[in-house]
Amino acid sequence: MKMRVHSSCSAAFSARCSRQVAPRAASAQAPPAVQVDDFDFQKYVMATAEKVNVALDAAVPMAYPETVHESIRYSLLAGGKRVRPMLCLASCDMLGGEESVAMPSACAMEMIHTMSLIHDDMPCMDNDSLRRGQPTNHVKYGDDIALLAGDALLAYSFEHIARETKATPEQIVRVIAEVGRAVGSIGLVGGQVVDIKSEGKKVPLETLEWIHVHKTAVLLEASVVTGAIVAGASDDDVERVRQYGRNIGLCFQVVDDILDVTQSSETLGKTAGKDLDSEKSTYPALLGLDESRKIAQRLNEEAKALLEPFDAEKRAPLVGLADYIYSRTN
Amino acid sequence: MKMRVHSSCSAAFSARCSRQVAPRAASAQAPPAVQVDDFDFQKYVMATAEKVNVALDAAVPMAYPETVHESIRYSLLAGGKRVRPMLCLASCDMLGGEESVAMPSACAMEMIHTMSLIHDDMPCMDNDSLRRGQPTNHVKYGDDIALLAGDALLAYSFEHIARETKATPEQIVRVIAEVGRAVGSIGLVGGQVVDIKSEGKKVPLETLEWIHVHKTAVLLEASVVTGAIVAGASDDDVERVRQYGRNIGLCFQVVDDILDVTQSSETLGKTAGKDLDSEKSTYPALLGLDESRKIAQRLNEEAKALLEPFDAEKRAPLVGLADYIYSRTN
Repeated sequence: MKMRVHSSCSAAFSARCSRQVAPRAASAQAPPAVQVDDFDFQKYVMATAEKVNVALDAAVPMAYPETVHESIRYSLLAGGKRVRPMLCLASCDMLGGEESVAMPSACAMEMIHTMSLIHDDMPCMDNDSLRRGQPTNHVKYGDDIALLAGDALLAYSFEHIARETKATPEQIVRVIAEVGRAVGSIGLVGGQVVDIKSEGKKVPLETLEWIHVHKTAVLLEASVVTGAIVAGASDDDVERVRQYGRNIGLCFQVVDDILDVTQSSETLGKTAGKDLDSEKSTYPALLGLDESRKIAQRLNEEAKALLEPFDAEKRAPLVGLADYIYSRTN
Repeated sequence: MKMRVHSSCSAAFSARCSRQVAPRAASAQAPPAVQVDDFDFQKYVMATAEKVNVALDAAVPMAYPETVHESIRYSLLAGGKRVRPMLCLASCDMLGGEESVAMPSACAMEMIHTMSLIHDDMPCMDNDSLRRGQPTNHVKYGDDIALLAGDALLAYSFEHIARETKATPEQIVRVIAEVGRAVGSIGLVGGQVVDIKSEGKKVPLETLEWIHVHKTAVLLEASVVTGAIVAGASDDDVERVRQYGRNIGLCFQVVDDILDVTQSSETLGKTAGKDLDSEKSTYPALLGLDESRKIAQRLNEEAKALLEPFDAEKRAPLVGLADYIYSRTN
């Protein structure tokens, strides 16, 4: 296997990758994270996204009633980056599990992410008309169908895990409890609620971090954690990848805030500058761009340091994903 | 235990109960369903609803962020009839399971029902401002919070089953698969989608039945089925209560259609006559009131006949619930 993480980040995924990721200071106890520099991240990403797309396509086939299945497939198969499924699959693989055992959870994480995008875009929420350069779900199918498609996707994500995961029933139950918490009122939804209630206010940094952790990081965290659970990982290893997931999740959101003020709508494929327009609290608004970039860098380094106990080749995809999340441009 | 099903239906639950439920024709093979005539249904309903209310209150305590938990509790603890939890608990009891083993699933069914009401009432769906005589969730908390509260409740229902059910992991996984299908695109959501797409059209009876079965019956069906699964029932018994659930579910919806044209808003606690106003297909609109009442009666009788293999005392609550659903006035 050719390994060259930093030198081969795809143009589609990041042009800044090899330049801006600061190498972690080497320690005597553990090899520096940048040692995995021959891993072909681009190839890994393309191959894994393709496998995930095939699995998602098969997981939600067309059926009666067509409208809702069309609506679900429109958003679910719209070519997202599949970061969450990759985290789940890579975590499972790093901890010794088969890819097939993690695929249902991987698909479920993408279904939940898609549900949150469909509902977020609705007029009563962010009122966005563009997503990934295409009309948002409610623009294409109507608000009622978009609402219902999101509900169906959320319910189906749990059903899919329950029906398709070839792990022990104990592991499946644990995965479902983990995913449920990640989505609920002290997870993704909780983060969105505090975000909404903070609009137009200068909130303290700890509230902003609470929003970002819950709005984004918990789902990335759940992705690696569910992959670890179905791999049969030890509790210690589950908690280690959980902390990795939380770090890259918070990093993801800080970078999102940064991109929103530095990139155009064309590059992002969505309406840029909305966060500043609506006076939402963001890292750049609260701390400035330079300090925000430093925080993102620190989160990225800490995430990779958490993976150091694991085999360098096995952890390469998660190292690559941490770097991608840190250095992405859209 | 005193048993007097038909003579003691509470005024709150039904004044028509003892008069309009036609006794099933006795057969030589099985005792007539009306034999369970000493069961105190009113007492059972009051005691069980109270237990369910206590369990729901404990299942969703107030927490940060307060807004979404307040919104969830506002709708979840608004004093619904708790028909779905009762079906789940009664099914489990009839099939030899402990009440405590079914309580998490019972609560989850009510959470899902509440989620569907919150989302149904939203402006992009039915645009209702009254529910159980009180302002609907979005009127009180705003459309964005109502949307998110529904999402959180849906996710939490699965988490709650996974974390709290003291059954075998195999049974829990089976329950989650069952509940997921009942909510999803070929369940509750599917029924709502076909309902929406049928507005203003005269649809054939089979489409109307598909709508009613999926919009309402699948959740009642899932309620009794999950109760049976955690009781450790045989596959045959699970399928028997499934058919009972489907029958009373379809009966529930036919009666709902009938009540909508025969009762006032004050009695129903919601805006009456909406279905006819918006030219939705309903049983009375398609077949007339008399024929609709006959169908409801047949469904009720068939449902009770399915329970005949079970002990008369043990099946009394499900017989009572079938009669209540058939003869309710709100």
